[in-house]
Amino acid sequence: RVNGDRLWDSLMEMAKIGPGIAGGNNRQTLTDSDSEGRSLFRTWCDDAGMTLGVDKMGTMFATRPGTDPDALPVYVGSHLDTQPTGGKYDGVLGVLGALEVVRTMNDLGIKTKHPVVVTNWTNEEGARFAPAMLASGVFAGAHKLEYAYDRKDPEGKTFGEELKRIGWVGDEEVGARKMHAYFEYHIEQGPILEVENKQIGVVTHCQGLWWLEFTLTGREAHTGSTPMNMRVNAGLAMSRIMEMVQTVAMENQPGAVGGVGQVFFTPNSRNVLPGKVVFTVDIRSPDQAKLDGMRTRIEAEAPKICEALGVGCAIEAIGHFAPVTFDPTLVSRVRGAAERLGYSHMNLISGAGHDACWAAKVAPTTMVMCPCVGGLSHNEAEDISKEWATAGADVLFHAVVETAEI
Amino acid sequence: RVNGDRLWDSLMEMAKIGPGIAGGNNRQTLTDSDSEGRSLFRTWCDDAGMTLGVDKMGTMFATRPGTDPDALPVYVGSHLDTQPTGGKYDGVLGVLGALEVVRTMNDLGIKTKHPVVVTNWTNEEGARFAPAMLASGVFAGAHKLEYAYDRKDPEGKTFGEELKRIGWVGDEEVGARKMHAYFEYHIEQGPILEVENKQIGVVTHCQGLWWLEFTLTGREAHTGSTPMNMRVNAGLAMSRIMEMVQTVAMENQPGAVGGVGQVFFTPNSRNVLPGKVVFTVDIRSPDQAKLDGMRTRIEAEAPKICEALGVGCAIEAIGHFAPVTFDPTLVSRVRGAAERLGYSHMNLISGAGHDACWAAKVAPTTMVMCPCVGGLSHNEAEDISKEWATAGADVLFHAVVETAEI
Ligand SMILES: NC(=O)NCCC(=O)O
Ligand SMILES: NC(=O)NCCC(=O)O
Repeated sequence: RVNGDRLWDSLMEMAKIGPGIAGGNNRQTLTDSDSEGRSLFRTWCDDAGMTLGVDKMGTMFATRPGTDPDALPVYVGSHLDTQPTGGKYDGVLGVLGALEVVRTMNDLGIKTKHPVVVTNWTNEEGARFAPAMLASGVFAGAHKLEYAYDRKDPEGKTFGEELKRIGWVGDEEVGARKMHAYFEYHIEQGPILEVENKQIGVVTHCQGLWWLEFTLTGREAHTGSTPMNMRVNAGLAMSRIMEMVQTVAMENQPGAVGGVGQVFFTPNSRNVLPGKVVFTVDIRSPDQAKLDGMRTRIEAEAPKICEALGVGCAIEAIGHFAPVTFDPTLVSRVRGAAERLGYSHMNLISGAGHDACWAAKVAPTTMVMCPCVGGLSHNEAEDISKEWATAGADVLFHAVVETAEI
Repeated sequence: RVNGDRLWDSLMEMAKIGPGIAGGNNRQTLTDSDSEGRSLFRTWCDDAGMTLGVDKMGTMFATRPGTDPDALPVYVGSHLDTQPTGGKYDGVLGVLGALEVVRTMNDLGIKTKHPVVVTNWTNEEGARFAPAMLASGVFAGAHKLEYAYDRKDPEGKTFGEELKRIGWVGDEEVGARKMHAYFEYHIEQGPILEVENKQIGVVTHCQGLWWLEFTLTGREAHTGSTPMNMRVNAGLAMSRIMEMVQTVAMENQPGAVGGVGQVFFTPNSRNVLPGKVVFTVDIRSPDQAKLDGMRTRIEAEAPKICEALGVGCAIEAIGHFAPVTFDPTLVSRVRGAAERLGYSHMNLISGAGHDACWAAKVAPTTMVMCPCVGGLSHNEAEDISKEWATAGADVLFHAVVETAEI
């Protein structure tokens, strides 16, 4: 069993870096706080006797050596970056849970054939730089390094500049490492485990996603002196597209979601009809055909909505990953560990994207989940109990050690 | 007749200060550019032999003396501040047109019984600090000085701090001046004069306005892992309110408009359903009953829309002025001047709000309008011709001189 108190203390220690405004965290990727969080994590890895490697995307790999010099490592990790108003556990639990696995192995003097590598992927959240899971995407060959470096935040700063600024550009080629297996431990971020009163989510699949960025072009004009029939109202077009996305998602129930999290009006002045509206539609489904069907329908209907208002409509797919089926052997190893440890469990499909979704392209991969209060995540009020955190880390410990082979 | 070339040159000179990104201006109120524009205007007033007074709202009053020491002045003006992506003429034409009236009086050696005071009102646009027409509102007793000083821009800076920072806090009590009459010359900002092929708008009324600021409270949550039926989606509620406002405005045709120019999502991250959405509804009508009826209906329907989604709904009226009827004597003086000068003209209701709307509370007031291309305003592409600008200034000159009495 892992040391739940130690895991919890580390979670609370990390949460002091990049505090939010409501008890959570704002430790967005490639900010000074991110850099500070990385340094603390490095210290912990040093203390646990691990050796740190960093790749050109800034992803951190801390290695506990194995006994067989030819055996590929078992990777275990997640991300330390957060949303602008994020929780203390989303991602962090997976990195510090992996660290706790190594600490426990050290405590018990466990030697494994395969090395174990605790991993902190850069920019999982995609809040500052779209798309999400950017570093693991480059690692898996889904994106080019140059593409990632050119991503811009809302202020126009690029990923490449910011990674350099915070001093975390490593020398390793991205994706050069080969993995024996990849494990990721994460809070569910949804309501199912809590509602079903289960301690462990055995994650069999992850749903796929499209991020569709809309740029609507209206005619900037005075809200008072522009008659209704002369308006080219990009804001109204946006509101109709939002409603249409809602309808499409509802008509694809169960097994689909759709919504909008980000909106920019230009010039965003109370008495000016917007000349430009940019917003991102987020649609997801575990079913590839359904996911692509929703995209096709939204891309067919939105231009009609805009045309009726004379509004220009450009759509760019700025984020995508296909639905993932995790490795059956690793999945049963997680389920077996939960059984052995006496933790209640159930199969889950991950509603959120994870670095595991990209890792699955290049290695046998799976995930372990624990419940979170009210299914709430991407919210500073995100919460879990120490007992939940510990149970998941126990299961992770057993599955990892079994895979790394004593 | 005024000197149209001189007027035009001054317009072009002022437009160099606070250039926009697409040929227009960004000279928002109480910015460094606003201060620079004020200094240039002061130099011109000095050169025309006028004496400058400034009140505690930063409004500038440049006086050309009259012959009768007991006669109240005729005020003529508008505003030099612009929208963030504003045109070169909105407001500026009214201030520099008034200056051209004085310059022409000087050229012709005209002496009047009443002084003539060229006026530049602070923060007419209301883009940086709501409400619009803030200084003229305090002047007319509609707002308290403290209320105005406490207005905040989106960065949280107050009007009072910013006025002080740019160095334009005057010593005059706001509203202490008494007016014999107030004239304001402005571009139409709407399409009617151009469509009807008229040179001069004789402005008989100004429509009234409500700005309703909505604060919708949803539940910040993950766009992927939050099932549709667990969402408390403040963005979706906003989109439905926007559609409802459009419906209300359309059902009140003719003689009503309604729309949304400003939207803030919080945290505004692609994969987070917004926990808070703030936006402003702008509704207007020349008919008080219709205007208030629209407000009542919007305030009744919006909470129902929100309730159906579990979203919290707070509505604050952050801007208002009632429909205005301008002074019949001054209105016929403007019409008479257009007749005499041989300019085509028609009656107009102003679709936009103007400082004249507040001045009308404390003095006989009216306006003169000239066409603008395509009815376009609050857009950097706002355009007028030198001939249009000159015709309106000619009419203003005649009406002002007649009112100031030779
Ligand atoms: N786990 C998580 O919140 N990842 C962010 C990417 C996504 O939007 O799913
Ligand atoms: N004239 C003008 O654009 N004024 C701004 C106030 C308004 O929104 O009407």
